[in-house]
Amino acid sequence: MTKNKLRVIPLGGASEVGRNMWVFEYEEDIIICDMGVMFPESEMMGVDLVLPDITYLRDKVANIRGVLLTHGHEDHIGAVPWLIGDLGFPTVYGTTLTLGLLSNKLKEHRLTDKVSTKTIAPGDKFQLGCFTIEPFHIAHSIPDSVGFGLTSPAGLALYITDWKLDHTPVDNWPTEIDRLVDFGRRNPIVLVTDCVRVESKGYTPSERVVGDAFDQIFATAPGRVIMATFASNISRVQMAINAAIDYGRKVVPVGRSMENNTSIARELGYLEVPDGVLIRPGDMKNLPDDQIAIVCTGSQGEPMAALSRMANRDHRQISIQRGDTVVISASPIPGNEVSVYKVIDNLYKLGANVIYGSDLPVHVSGHAAQEELKMLLNLVQPQYVIPFHGDYRHLARYKQLAEGMGFNGDNVLIAEGGSIMEFSQNYGKLVSRAPVGHVFVDGVSVGDIGGAVVRDRQMLAKDGILMVVVSVELQTGNLVAGPDIVSRGFVSTRDSTDLIEGAKEAVRASFSESYVVPARAFSDGEETAEGNSPAVSSPAARKIKEVVGRYLYERTRRRPMVIPVVMEV
Amino acid sequence: MTKNKLRVIPLGGASEVGRNMWVFEYEEDIIICDMGVMFPESEMMGVDLVLPDITYLRDKVANIRGVLLTHGHEDHIGAVPWLIGDLGFPTVYGTTLTLGLLSNKLKEHRLTDKVSTKTIAPGDKFQLGCFTIEPFHIAHSIPDSVGFGLTSPAGLALYITDWKLDHTPVDNWPTEIDRLVDFGRRNPIVLVTDCVRVESKGYTPSERVVGDAFDQIFATAPGRVIMATFASNISRVQMAINAAIDYGRKVVPVGRSMENNTSIARELGYLEVPDGVLIRPGDMKNLPDDQIAIVCTGSQGEPMAALSRMANRDHRQISIQRGDTVVISASPIPGNEVSVYKVIDNLYKLGANVIYGSDLPVHVSGHAAQEELKMLLNLVQPQYVIPFHGDYRHLARYKQLAEGMGFNGDNVLIAEGGSIMEFSQNYGKLVSRAPVGHVFVDGVSVGDIGGAVVRDRQMLAKDGILMVVVSVELQTGNLVAGPDIVSRGFVSTRDSTDLIEGAKEAVRASFSESYVVPARAFSDGEETAEGNSPAVSSPAARKIKEVVGRYLYERTRRRPMVIPVVMEV
Repeated sequence: MTKNKLRVIPLGGASEVGRNMWVFEYEEDIIICDMGVMFPESEMMGVDLVLPDITYLRDKVANIRGVLLTHGHEDHIGAVPWLIGDLGFPTVYGTTLTLGLLSNKLKEHRLTDKVSTKTIAPGDKFQLGCFTIEPFHIAHSIPDSVGFGLTSPAGLALYITDWKLDHTPVDNWPTEIDRLVDFGRRNPIVLVTDCVRVESKGYTPSERVVGDAFDQIFATAPGRVIMATFASNISRVQMAINAAIDYGRKVVPVGRSMENNTSIARELGYLEVPDGVLIRPGDMKNLPDDQIAIVCTGSQGEPMAALSRMANRDHRQISIQRGDTVVISASPIPGNEVSVYKVIDNLYKLGANVIYGSDLPVHVSGHAAQEELKMLLNLVQPQYVIPFHGDYRHLARYKQLAEGMGFNGDNVLIAEGGSIMEFSQNYGKLVSRAPVGHVFVDGVSVGDIGGAVVRDRQMLAKDGILMVVVSVELQTGNLVAGPDIVSRGFVSTRDSTDLIEGAKEAVRASFSESYVVPARAFSDGEETAEGNSPAVSSPAARKIKEVVGRYLYERTRRRPMVIPVVMEV
Repeated sequence: MTKNKLRVIPLGGASEVGRNMWVFEYEEDIIICDMGVMFPESEMMGVDLVLPDITYLRDKVANIRGVLLTHGHEDHIGAVPWLIGDLGFPTVYGTTLTLGLLSNKLKEHRLTDKVSTKTIAPGDKFQLGCFTIEPFHIAHSIPDSVGFGLTSPAGLALYITDWKLDHTPVDNWPTEIDRLVDFGRRNPIVLVTDCVRVESKGYTPSERVVGDAFDQIFATAPGRVIMATFASNISRVQMAINAAIDYGRKVVPVGRSMENNTSIARELGYLEVPDGVLIRPGDMKNLPDDQIAIVCTGSQGEPMAALSRMANRDHRQISIQRGDTVVISASPIPGNEVSVYKVIDNLYKLGANVIYGSDLPVHVSGHAAQEELKMLLNLVQPQYVIPFHGDYRHLARYKQLAEGMGFNGDNVLIAEGGSIMEFSQNYGKLVSRAPVGHVFVDGVSVGDIGGAVVRDRQMLAKDGILMVVVSVELQTGNLVAGPDIVSRGFVSTRDSTDLIEGAKEAVRASFSESYVVPARAFSDGEETAEGNSPAVSSPAARKIKEVVGRYLYERTRRRPMVIPVVMEV
């Protein structure tokens, strides 16, 4: 730990969307900014969540002065319940709405009494260790979002994530450009900024244009309106409520997170809803269809969320009917396109009309586009920049964008996960790497499964598995029962009796005295993490595996996982 | 088979992109239009190709008068080698380039001598059974594309797939609007048209705008240009060659299908390349970087294609270097976004600059947008329309588009795969359904695997598998060896010894005398197609499965597939 330098480390990986968790460290003081989860990529089969890797902090837990949260999205607060204990329960600082959304999670994990939180607001200024913390308001797709100025003896660092400029935000609270100007005058040493929309030219439109689109839809839809969006996008929900009121519709929040978030936001004053506007699904039957607006989850085609279940005729309370107008008020996150389109197809099959994509401006991003990113650089004039919250191409293009403005490209640090960077006046460098990997949450345990298990699932998904079970006599090694072959995901045994019989014959033949295990050690690369008992790793087992694997490949060109089990009796 | 009616049946499923195969049947005469493959969806794990289902034709093979191909894309000709034999080797009709691309496939399948083909051209008019066939030229993203007028005693049917209007196509041959006008005057009974871009407002831009973008790039790129596109998009390749010549670059086709298609197209006169312009990868070392343009496959992020391998540093001949300009001249097909973005990320990591998406117009679609679709309806004035080559939402929106123009919505037939529709003057109806399913090609055999096997792979991919093997005494049913537990893709046994030990203990306990199999039959819904031997379906086996499944779920909330194997000794 270098003296006099500010250390900045992205534990979630700067180059991955999600899992945001940043360490700002000056000598004996550590501040953590955000603690989010990442949703698994499609190859991470069967995994529920991916957490940041806190290995770097394990020996430094006593130095943690606090956790600062910027806003209430899952990829910024979702990991708090999972990690806060291992981090020694430092105090968590956040705005009212952010802490309100967090408190729900803490309750679910039974941590309410263990975690201390402190409400902050833009304009505050407080000390945590040697750091002076200055939150300021930014516009995003959830209200009450802030960025942080963090001043240590090394200088001023700015942490600005998930931001845009919006001159007409729904809560009437634009990004505080005046604060950015002030910070800019203090010669910040480093700016950490999101860059996920660096591919988009111009400026991101205001949230307000969606409100205009909603007006048009809510006024003219012949029957019910069903609007799907992120439950955390309170501004979007507010505009739906406003349009509903203007056109005489009651609003029905549907979906657990939608109901929760709407309720928390309302309670804390972030959602304005006159009494009597919100109703429950059961109350709908008393109303004509054109007086109903349902606001629900599922805008990403998530299988368990409300809209997907409605599209699958699988929702207990809502059935899609002819004449419904469904609005998909979101853009598919890369990877979700097929799920979203399947939901839309099914909604059409059920007779709904669906408004999505570029039909009408029913969605705008919460992130800055190229011109806003350039403006921030000009306002803040940092010595160094760390772009993040994007994939590698976004970081690389941000660097190009900065260079195009005359910014020194060497001062734009492209940080992979775990990069340890150090800064002070006119000094900025990648010095080493912290150990970071994917930490999976699968089922109820954290870290229960490793990369090898996920790889096995991928192999199983490709060609299936074949189990070959024999009983052999302990003394002689002779076959006394079997082989029995059970396959899953490989081939329809009913249709392929000959193939399976042939494999059995090959096994039997291998037990005859003349068979010699080929000298070449067959290596499937199957060094899995799952321990092998002697039943699967003995010479007899290896022989079976080799024989069956080769037989099947020659006939089918497929490589199912072959698991031999040799019972010695 | 109704007399006096034209039967129209999509065997590939009108509502799926790909697998195009249409049957036009009048009494004893059958014409097949197109015979394409579909690439598997991500849930169809481990499957290589999906073919149309020709069950409907099995008893009618003698009635097949010919196969008409519209153009050389995989989803229109890819199934010919797989199915033409089962269909009795009817003659295949296509334009010069289409048959040229087909001949390559027939050679690979050793069918060249068995399949008879006949070259046709726009303006031809010929008889097949009672059908008069009239091909006419349409613009698409591959040259030499046609639509067909098919006249039977029932009336004129128009089959127009994969088309757009392009007034400045690269081959100077626009869609023959005059032919459409002529057909329109003959009161066609039914129009079959693609509608995949019905979500797009306005008109699809001309292929020519890509040429302008290529000019800009090829002129200014500091080093090599690497342009990735579909190998079948000969027009795109032509424009790359034109720009290369204009700016002093040699052209290197890379990727098996790119090399093949370029060669076939050139041979047949569809690609104009002066001598000396095309070079081989090995010749590049003699040239400065800014005199090189590589044209390669992989624009969809396909793992085995050239660009992905270059991005993974896995291509034998080409290594990406700093200063390369890569152009992704394609739009990701839904489902491919993540693969494409990963390739782009990796290219940036290797120091390339990448031009993609909306940076510059480096790609336009080959399909008609809303205004073109409307224009076709006005020109042709069919009595009935069958929109296809889209997902359900496209078909539904096409119907809305037609209704918006005053077309009678009841006369737009939304046809699921296998729909048997019949037409004559002022008559059009869905009369029944042909049996169609997914026919998988997996490994080397067709139809080898069924839906159940694919479902098993999905289950394995999600939670993995656990095998529990015991030996029991035949007479007493007592446990004599085991239980041995082997898991794959479930949990790291090394880390979860307690869990596995507990499962073993539960199995042992279940063999004690006091254990009673619960009355409720546990049903995992695991009615798989793979036959079960007694070793896995006996009462003892079912007991083990129930006990272990319950134990694991209670502790982990996961449901791995549990396969009990009971060896009786």
